[in-house]
Amino acid sequence: MEVWSKKIYLELPKPCEEDHRPLQERLIAALKDSGPFRQEEKTAYIRVRSNALRNASDICEQSDFRVTATIAFDGYGWELLRLEAGNTAEAHYGLCVDLGSTTVLMELLNLNTGEILGRESIFNPGINWGEDILSRIFYTKGRPERRKRLQRATVEGFCTLLDSLEKKTGIDVHSCPILTVSGNTTMIHFLLGLDAFGVFSSPYAVQTLAPDMVRGEELGIPIDGFVYCCPGLENYLGGDIISGMLATGIPDQEEICVFLDVGTNGELVVGNKDFLLAGAGAAGPALEGGVVHTGMRAEEGAVDRVTTEQGRLKVHVIGEGKAKGICGSGIADLIAELFLNGWIDLRGRFQEESPKVIKVPGREEQETELAVEYAPGLYFYQDDVDEFLRTKAAAMTMVEYMMKLIGLTMEDVGRFYVAGAFGTHFDKESAVTIGLYPDIDRDRILSPGNTSLQGARKLLLDRSLAKKAEEIVSRMEYVQFGAVEDFLQLMVAATAIPHTDLQRYPSVARRLEERRKERV
Amino acid sequence: MEVWSKKIYLELPKPCEEDHRPLQERLIAALKDSGPFRQEEKTAYIRVRSNALRNASDICEQSDFRVTATIAFDGYGWELLRLEAGNTAEAHYGLCVDLGSTTVLMELLNLNTGEILGRESIFNPGINWGEDILSRIFYTKGRPERRKRLQRATVEGFCTLLDSLEKKTGIDVHSCPILTVSGNTTMIHFLLGLDAFGVFSSPYAVQTLAPDMVRGEELGIPIDGFVYCCPGLENYLGGDIISGMLATGIPDQEEICVFLDVGTNGELVVGNKDFLLAGAGAAGPALEGGVVHTGMRAEEGAVDRVTTEQGRLKVHVIGEGKAKGICGSGIADLIAELFLNGWIDLRGRFQEESPKVIKVPGREEQETELAVEYAPGLYFYQDDVDEFLRTKAAAMTMVEYMMKLIGLTMEDVGRFYVAGAFGTHFDKESAVTIGLYPDIDRDRILSPGNTSLQGARKLLLDRSLAKKAEEIVSRMEYVQFGAVEDFLQLMVAATAIPHTDLQRYPSVARRLEERRKERV
Repeated sequence: MEVWSKKIYLELPKPCEEDHRPLQERLIAALKDSGPFRQEEKTAYIRVRSNALRNASDICEQSDFRVTATIAFDGYGWELLRLEAGNTAEAHYGLCVDLGSTTVLMELLNLNTGEILGRESIFNPGINWGEDILSRIFYTKGRPERRKRLQRATVEGFCTLLDSLEKKTGIDVHSCPILTVSGNTTMIHFLLGLDAFGVFSSPYAVQTLAPDMVRGEELGIPIDGFVYCCPGLENYLGGDIISGMLATGIPDQEEICVFLDVGTNGELVVGNKDFLLAGAGAAGPALEGGVVHTGMRAEEGAVDRVTTEQGRLKVHVIGEGKAKGICGSGIADLIAELFLNGWIDLRGRFQEESPKVIKVPGREEQETELAVEYAPGLYFYQDDVDEFLRTKAAAMTMVEYMMKLIGLTMEDVGRFYVAGAFGTHFDKESAVTIGLYPDIDRDRILSPGNTSLQGARKLLLDRSLAKKAEEIVSRMEYVQFGAVEDFLQLMVAATAIPHTDLQRYPSVARRLEERRKERV
Repeated sequence: MEVWSKKIYLELPKPCEEDHRPLQERLIAALKDSGPFRQEEKTAYIRVRSNALRNASDICEQSDFRVTATIAFDGYGWELLRLEAGNTAEAHYGLCVDLGSTTVLMELLNLNTGEILGRESIFNPGINWGEDILSRIFYTKGRPERRKRLQRATVEGFCTLLDSLEKKTGIDVHSCPILTVSGNTTMIHFLLGLDAFGVFSSPYAVQTLAPDMVRGEELGIPIDGFVYCCPGLENYLGGDIISGMLATGIPDQEEICVFLDVGTNGELVVGNKDFLLAGAGAAGPALEGGVVHTGMRAEEGAVDRVTTEQGRLKVHVIGEGKAKGICGSGIADLIAELFLNGWIDLRGRFQEESPKVIKVPGREEQETELAVEYAPGLYFYQDDVDEFLRTKAAAMTMVEYMMKLIGLTMEDVGRFYVAGAFGTHFDKESAVTIGLYPDIDRDRILSPGNTSLQGARKLLLDRSLAKKAEEIVSRMEYVQFGAVEDFLQLMVAATAIPHTDLQRYPSVARRLEERRKERV
């Protein structure tokens, strides 16, 4: 394990007639001679920031020349960032951030123990210029002053999180020598104030996928130290996914793993220690409830679980109050139940003959639509089902296509990782039933949670993972789904529930059969 | 010759389906492959500043991917600072500064040709907190907020100079990748915002004598690039003197050289390619006219030349108007004439029998003092002579002591450099006559002018001189005059005009004889 920063306690020789070297020289000599530094390469430099020397004389005097130096890796060597009186080596903190397009999460860690001391989150302030990233990209297109505005807003978010963490923990977060960031390519561009139009526009040449370390202050982040951004592979396959690789350890595994991260977009990695394929597609919003008529975030009033009891839908509402809408996990459950109950067919078409399927007024006058009332006054329509199935098909087709590329089928999947809130909240059985997950041992379906944050945290604690991240990027092959010929055909097959080929889903076939028997 | 920065014109391959590398990667590959960079060590890094990428996409689009990159040495490797559209390689400018305690001089140079494009000077804004550096050191002692104030004031001075240069030359000085600074240890501490009390206070351990390169912006200097400060040797032997060594080339000369820089303080180097001794002492103000009753700066109204014609003093007044006082060069002339005319003896005592020496009321009541009226209503008093002789003695004793240290006498001096305005304005004959310069071939007495600025300029044009400066510092031995036993004795001898041992000044003995004959 390598570290980004060290706090080194030094008992400096006091200046006297015989030895009146400048403090800088005294410090560097002591640092280079110290245990923590001796393990570094001989050629490693320690640069001294003039800021670090600004109160140095007072600190040395107060402490009788017993001081603690904070040094941090600047990308190529070391920099002395700060001096403190006495031995403060135990107060060694760092920050990691998951810079999501919707949510920004920051954690404060004790770098000596690895303990998480605090975690705060806010909405990404960039949301003010569009919930989806494309709106934000267009907002800043060819407008440097707007890029600057968005850059500042992003950093303002960081400042807010720093303040909250400081308030909650009582720790001087500004002394942190290192902050690691994991985010998608667009978010990293916004953080650095770069033009992100290349993310969207062919031939998708962005400004950077592996930004150099940058001093926090240069970005406006009020910390002593440096900001490291996890590198990305492509416009739509950013550092958040590479970070996910570090979090899950997929690039070192024997078994073939599938890693699916469905947020605003869908990203996919298939691979193990021998190969890594990655791709991305527009997958997200429908799975999060975004485009469903009564869809909503997983917050109070959202239906998040749906079951069938004695032929009737039974819902769970977050906060246990009145249902106001339905969130992603509720939708997956609902569609699974509709299918298992026979209220929709394998194409997702509502079955008119079913007594629970009702006719409601359509959006066009004189039209009617089929729907179910999943909670009092809340309807789930045919086009809601359709939209959701199209999205799940897109996600699963990516997986299937990649497996096919390497001559494998879904049966060869050793581990199926579903990252993000999505993976955490979705009911595995429902997700398999609707064909969003493959029908494999449920133990092999893993929901690791926020792997972007986990990766950023791992990176924070072990600098050698920065090299690992680079290595992953260089090993990983990017698959352009847009260019794939039989993609549409595969997708049509995957739009069925769970799939046109039910044999691939033996457990679903079984449950379907059981449910049919129950109904009889 | 090595350079601090390069402007490299690049015709970048345009992004296409087959090659949609991020701009950063595209740039780095092109830079590393470019002629100007290929000469660098293989391991040299090029770091990319996110700032440099902020308008990069627009610049590439405007210029059809024909851009000029400015890269600068950051102390250990290279950093891409700026991109410009088209080929702007000819617009490659840098700055050098002589950061004096009284005056700050800045020059703008064409880094491709070495041409000086502009030079501006201002009073050091630090003067507001004391003309002498000790007042400023005490002002900031133990008061970090005052150090910050002085730091800002110093930088404000730089900003003023930058603005003037920009206005006069029409060149965007903010694009400069490098600014070299030469200044004494105290001034460099003030520039960096460091506590300078160690300069004054035993055991004279300062904060730094070799500051690391620092980004201009970190100090508040609005340039793209870096600030390099010439390293110093000791509290009173700073980068301005090391810079003087680079300017004169003394450390590579065969002949034994004496380098005397008399400003607010006096610094001295004796040496050649084989050895370098250096020392410093309080020498200055008297030689600059500072402590003389009617002393003044060399400005309009100052007597700057004194001769004797037909037994009467004849003065030249700057601006040709009425004399208001006398400046350093005038004083040296005056004392030389007083001595040659026999109006003062070799101890500098006014000779009452001389008709030109008059009695004037002394400062204590009922006392009288001897004096000469060197211009209508302007008197030069006994204590003026005494003060000046004490100072010249201090300077010459330093030289003599050092020569003695290495077993040599003044006759062994090959070249005698008198740096600064002092050297430029003093009449060589007068200076020899009063024993301020040794009595050697006048061709071997050199007045190179502002060697601090010249050194900073040389450093600006050739980065290899930074290594040379370090080497000079490591070779140079510092002589503590305070600790010298027979220093006082030497000094008493040197207080005479030109010296108690007139044999050392054969030309002065000759002139004295000639003058005596004239008078008879």
